[in-house]
Amino acid sequence: MRKLEFWFEFASTYSYLSAMRVQDLADQEGVRLIWRPFLLGAIFKKDLGYADSPFNHHEKKRNYMWRDMVRLTQARGLPEFVKPAQFPQNGLQAARLAMALQGDDRLPIFVRAVFRAQFQYGEDISQEDMLFDILSQNGFDAPHLMNKAQSDKIKKALREQTEKADRLGIFGAPVFLTQNGDLFWGDDRLQMALQWQE
Amino acid sequence: MRKLEFWFEFASTYSYLSAMRVQDLADQEGVRLIWRPFLLGAIFKKDLGYADSPFNHHEKKRNYMWRDMVRLTQARGLPEFVKPAQFPQNGLQAARLAMALQGDDRLPIFVRAVFRAQFQYGEDISQEDMLFDILSQNGFDAPHLMNKAQSDKIKKALREQTEKADRLGIFGAPVFLTQNGDLFWGDDRLQMALQWQE
Repeated sequence: MRKLEFWFEFASTYSYLSAMRVQDLADQEGVRLIWRPFLLGAIFKKDLGYADSPFNHHEKKRNYMWRDMVRLTQARGLPEFVKPAQFPQNGLQAARLAMALQGDDRLPIFVRAVFRAQFQYGEDISQEDMLFDILSQNGFDAPHLMNKAQSDKIKKALREQTEKADRLGIFGAPVFLTQNGDLFWGDDRLQMALQWQE
Repeated sequence: MRKLEFWFEFASTYSYLSAMRVQDLADQEGVRLIWRPFLLGAIFKKDLGYADSPFNHHEKKRNYMWRDMVRLTQARGLPEFVKPAQFPQNGLQAARLAMALQGDDRLPIFVRAVFRAQFQYGEDISQEDMLFDILSQNGFDAPHLMNKAQSDKIKKALREQTEKADRLGIFGAPVFLTQNGDLFWGDDRLQMALQWQE
């Protein structure tokens, strides 16, 4: 069975688009999908010296991105896109929770719920009570996971995963990584990555 | 009949990908296509303060782009992609010639030949003798067009077209502009732009 890694950042609009469809498409293609949260902010800082998203350093591109998201969510039958009050949001706690859920096959349920909170309801995903509610409402053991997410082990695992993304040459999100190390960047490359024969 | 404007920059790898297929696809969709050369360098300078392509300020993204081009040209059955010795190339003379050919329905033949020279043969498209040869070999009146391209009228028309691109919010290439002013950026949005119903 082919494997594909889906590297995503919670603050990333195009990661949201992929998160909403990638598992179904991977299942259809018979590809085993591994979800890999990481922190793009650290990579932007290292690669570009930026303290936030490159979109915030390129006004025309940012304006275009919001318009693109409205059109793409419409075209895909997703609920109306809501531009969050702040961009990018701080996805650190959400990413730690996703690390705490590594190996749990219900991880995608949590990830999609966080993306929906942000881009369908405009909520602030850095809020711990909101993340707690998402976990509870989806049947996870919220108190246990919130504690686990604050452990040194999980904090370190997320740092290492982000460092690995950097070493792999990842510079944006989403990225699809094939077994032989070929990178496909962007929701636009999702299908090509899924069908890639090495 | 719907109309769509195809804004392209000769040095742009993804403009090459679109140039090789957009006219056939527009014809199939019954969309009238207008080819719009412009100079992206002026826009990068104004928007970002860069003297060359943003790819040259983001090493991992540039490396990815070269790999992406190899894969995409293969997937589309285009000849093997050749990375030009210099990137970005200076497309000023080619763009002036394309402006001199505005209104000539053989403009796409010239544009595609210049892109092929650059990305299939690795030639330097700033060389006037090479552009002269491309014109001659494709049945254009090369001496007349080379002269016309140096006229004040054509130089001014290209400057104005680039300024218009900036006013339209164009920040990269290729861009597809619909009749109501909706921008679609990138070869990845070509089909969406062609099918866009306003």
